[in-house]
Formats: sequence, structure tokens, C-alpha cells
Amino acid sequence: MNLPELLKRIRSFRDERDWAQFHNAKDMAAALAIEASELQEIFLWKAGSEIEETATKKRSEIEDELADIAVYLLELADNLEIDLEAAIVAKLAKNAEKYPVEKARGSSAKYTEL
Amino acid sequence: MNLPELLKRIRSFRDERDWAQFHNAKDMAAALAIEASELQEIFLWKAGSEIEETATKKRSEIEDELADIAVYLLELADNLEIDLEAAIVAKLAKNAEKYPVEKARGSSAKYTEL
Amino acid sequence: MNLPELLKRIRSFRDERDWAQFHNAKDMAAALAIEASELQEIFLWKAGSEIEETATKKRSEIEDELADIAVYLLELADNLEIDLEAAIVAKLAKNAEKYPVEKARGSSAKYTEL
Amino acid sequence: MNLPELLKRIRSFRDERDWAQFHNAKDMAAALAIEASELQEIFLWKAGSEIEETATKKRSEIEDELADIAVYLLELADNLEIDLEAAIVAKLAKNAEKYPVEKARGSSAKYTEL
Repeated sequence: MNLPELLKRIRSFRDERDWAQFHNAKDMAAALAIEASELQEIFLWKAGSEIEETATKKRSEIEDELADIAVYLLELADNLEIDLEAAIVAKLAKNAEKYPVEKARGSSAKYTEL
Repeated sequence: MNLPELLKRIRSFRDERDWAQFHNAKDMAAALAIEASELQEIFLWKAGSEIEETATKKRSEIEDELADIAVYLLELADNLEIDLEAAIVAKLAKNAEKYPVEKARGSSAKYTEL
Repeated sequence: MNLPELLKRIRSFRDERDWAQFHNAKDMAAALAIEASELQEIFLWKAGSEIEETATKKRSEIEDELADIAVYLLELADNLEIDLEAAIVAKLAKNAEKYPVEKARGSSAKYTEL
Repeated sequence: MNLPELLKRIRSFRDERDWAQFHNAKDMAAALAIEASELQEIFLWKAGSEIEETATKKRSEIEDELADIAVYLLELADNLEIDLEAAIVAKLAKNAEKYPVEKARGSSAKYTEL
């Protein structure tokens, strides 16, 4: 399968339910944040080796959450006619300037601290 | 470009900076949630027609936030060896059962309320 | 009741379960964000008058989420020995400078746009 | 100072700016989630002893974020006429049933796993 085919399925799912009326950019962004928070909840209070253990034990739940995030992300980009691939390439270039290799290497500091 | 090529760029960006050490699943999930929240912040306090106006006016900022979300999403799925496309198809099928067309049509109710 | 009494109960609840070991500032902040996201989820896809209707219909659920947020907030401030009341008063003063009445009146613009 | 006095200041701040029109429960919940995410961002990628170091180094930023969360929380409870203290006491009682001491002691498991 490919992106156009995935988008076709995502649009069909929404339109069969007449849900486009709810899918304005604000609610879509909220939905994305809510799903990302559900993903995060899986790892709450876990530390060190428990994180990998949780990733294994909860694999199916994680797959579902990643899929939920992906569906909202792809649909929102589609609705706004944003070329996600081009946006990613452009953002990676921007980040490469923000975090020059020589300064950022091995550091968890945010760019305001570099 | 295609997904393998995008992933190659995402991995290069990370590895040139030696950042894989920070990119455990828990922090990646947190990063995803934080980026989704930044996207959401763009629409905070906006209502009705202001939402579309904001989507137009802040298009470049929105592209950047969608790209940030996409990069973390793709990298996290890659790290966990999750086939995101397969996960999306499986989740859409699950959602189709959870939200049957005849019950969900035109309704913003969550499935617990249907 | 008062804040010291509330804090005593919150600490007892945690310490009876030996949970202080998990309650580092990073996980507490994540927990706060997750609870706030659950609150938000109650209003997802709702618009206009549905928002008030939802606030009425889901009152008990909202009370629970607000309480969850409050508990993490109070405990985190307690753990970090931050005087929340003083922090609020100081932040309101800072915000008053950031959003001068004459510029901010009736506007939903963020301060970068004022 | 006390809660009624704090609320008086929070309401004044809002009303001088004529912002009540934007402060519906949905946007207030979104604002809370966004502020909690900003708090969380401070600790992103930090692990082990870096968490405490960050809590010290970024103390003033953390105070500001906790204050932002508190202001939205107090105002939202006030708007919905929810007695936050009573809600906290009730929720702690509910949590005590959900997480019985003998089962929850020393465990980071969520209640679905206990």
C-alpha cells in the first residue's frame, strides 16, 4: 500500500460516518495531542529497563496508539493540503541549522542552551 | 521520496548528533505529546471561522509542527520495528467495529456513549 | 480544610503505597499532562452550546479529572518546595506586563502577536 | 492569602481584559493541557540525576509553569462552580479503593494490571 491508498481509506472511514463536520483543524490538533498522551500514559512511572519491557509487553497497545496518531496526522495534513513529506524534509533542514552537529553531539540540551 | 528514504534521513539526523541514547520509547512518546501540544497551542482560544483563518495565517508554523510530530512518530515506529502502515490498516478495522456506521453517523459521541 | 491538611492527605496516600520512589519531577509533570489530556478528551469534538451541555452532563467525570490534576500539582509543588500561592501571585504580575490591558482587551491573540 | 483572595485576583486579571468570552470549559481544558506540556518539556530527554539537577537549574521556569497550571485549574473549577477541595478529598477516597495498599504497595502498575 502507499500514502494515497491509506488516505483513501482514512477519508472513507470518516465520510461514511459523516464526521468531516467535526474534523476542523483545532479539534484534529486536540485529538492528536490526546492520542499522544494515551501513548505516553503507557510508559508513565517506568524507568530504565522497565521502559523496554513495557514496549515489549504492551506492543499491541502501542501499535494502536501509534496508528491513532498517524491517522489524525495524515488526515489533518490532507485536510490542510500540506505535503507532509516535503514538510518533514524542510523541517529536518531547519533542525540541522538549529542543532549544528558540533554543538549538539551527545547533548540533551535544548537549542536555547547550546 | 518514500518512507525508507525519509527514515534514512531521520536516522542520519539523529545519529550524526549521537542522540539515539536519549530516544528511548518513553521520551519519544513524551516528545510526540509535547509537539502535538505545540500544534494545539496555535488554535487555542480560536472559534468558528477564526480556526480556518488561523490555519491559513499560521500555515508555515503548522507545517513545522506536523513535521515534528511525523518525525517522532516515524522514528519511534522504526525503533520499535512497528509497521506503521499495517498498524493503521488494523486500527481502522478495529475502529470500524467500535463505531458502526449506522450508530456513529453524524454523531460526536464517544463509543462509550453510542 | 486547608492546604496543609490536603497535603497531609496527599502525602499519606502516596507514602502508604510507597510511591514516592516513582514521583520524580519528570514523571509527575508527565502525569499532570496526561490527566489534563483526559480532561480535554471530555470536550473533544464538542462545539458551541454542546460545550456547556457536556460540562453539565459529565460534571462528575470533570470533578474527578480536576481533582487528579490538583493532586499532582499540589504534590509536585510540595516535593519541589515551591510556594504555589506565591508563584501564582508572581505569575499574574508577570502576565499583567505581558498582556497590558489596553492591548489585550477582548483579543485572543497571543502576546507575540499583540 | 487564601483561595477566595487568589480567585479574586484571577477573575480581575481576566475581566480587565474581557477574556471570559474565550474561557469556555473546552478551551480552558486545552490551556491546562498545553501548560502541563510546557512543564513536561523542561524535563524532556533528562534521566536519573539530571532530573533533580534540572529541577534546581530551571526552578524559576518551573514555578511559572506550575503557576500557569494552577491559575487555569482554579479558574476552571470556579467557572464550573466545582469545590476543588471537596473533589480532591472525594477522589483520594476513590483512588484508595482503586489502589488498595496491600496490592499497590511499591508497584508502578496501573490499576488495570493490579
